[in-house]
Amino acid sequence: MAAMGTRERIIDAAEQSIHEHGIAGATTKRIAQRAGCSEALLYKHFSSKETLFLAVLLERMPALAPALALLRDRAGQGDVAADLTAFAVTAVDFYTSVAPVASGMMADPSLMAGFRAMLAERRSGPHLPVLALAELLRDEQRAGRIDAGLDAVAAASMLLGACFHRASMSSFVDLPGETGEWAETLVATLLRR
Amino acid sequence: MAAMGTRERIIDAAEQSIHEHGIAGATTKRIAQRAGCSEALLYKHFSSKETLFLAVLLERMPALAPALALLRDRAGQGDVAADLTAFAVTAVDFYTSVAPVASGMMADPSLMAGFRAMLAERRSGPHLPVLALAELLRDEQRAGRIDAGLDAVAAASMLLGACFHRASMSSFVDLPGETGEWAETLVATLLRR
Repeated sequence: MAAMGTRERIIDAAEQSIHEHGIAGATTKRIAQRAGCSEALLYKHFSSKETLFLAVLLERMPALAPALALLRDRAGQGDVAADLTAFAVTAVDFYTSVAPVASGMMADPSLMAGFRAMLAERRSGPHLPVLALAELLRDEQRAGRIDAGLDAVAAASMLLGACFHRASMSSFVDLPGETGEWAETLVATLLRR
Repeated sequence: MAAMGTRERIIDAAEQSIHEHGIAGATTKRIAQRAGCSEALLYKHFSSKETLFLAVLLERMPALAPALALLRDRAGQGDVAADLTAFAVTAVDFYTSVAPVASGMMADPSLMAGFRAMLAERRSGPHLPVLALAELLRDEQRAGRIDAGLDAVAAASMLLGACFHRASMSSFVDLPGETGEWAETLVATLLRR
């Protein structure tokens, strides 16, 4: 249990350091200090900065997985447009919260190389939610609730892509309009027959 | 002309430094050294690191503006789906090339604050291509070449959003499929009646 506590403290410290200083400023020295442990102990829990940042992404961010699970639970019942709209709003929130970490990775060529290799090995990556959403859209098509003529992968790529883009753009500019209404229009545009 | 030469050399040096070291490692000291000038001279041409990086974004990246102008020239004639597909492929290339700079900005909270203020003052930002594309789609709707029932802003948000997302995801994983075919499916999905 004591070991669990340290691991959690290190992840917390990493998350806070990234938000304050950006990923470049979130050094293992600074993270260890903040977590109240030595750098040696940090490296006992996380073999590299990449594995630590992956843990931050997977364990501290409001993941898309629960939102996808919710959609799956409601497949074939209720209001599919309303459910997809709520999912899109969650996706914008998710991408907004991961942006500081993800952009920090992208901005650091050496960190990115390690992260890319790790994702390939785990067969993980940011494309998986797109495929999961496409699968859900196909289920709704089979149930006759979405036009069978819609290309599910293309629709999922565009809906999640727009959410990701909106989250990124909002770092640069104040976007007009409310995210919920924006998402509603997107979903209506995709589902129109 | 000599002054012009220095300015261009500094922008080149900044671009190369960002690609090699990431934005955090692209210090003005390193950029000035690479450009063969003093940091004082660099600051004579660019009042801040933000203005220098904005110049890199605006003057060195394959901008979306010419691709939008091409679409505008061809409005009302030719194959609208093929033209939008070609535009989407250019957009993926554009977002791929700006990713190192844009993500570097997003990853650096203090740099981002300055950049955000500068964009607001210039009324510029990454949302402008979305609005320009929407305007073009509306022109095609008026010409009867695209379903008038399509929401132009939603369609533009989804097409460019998917392109931006694809460019970002390709930093993390090898995406299956060829970008041209991928774009063709997206455009067909948007334009289906």
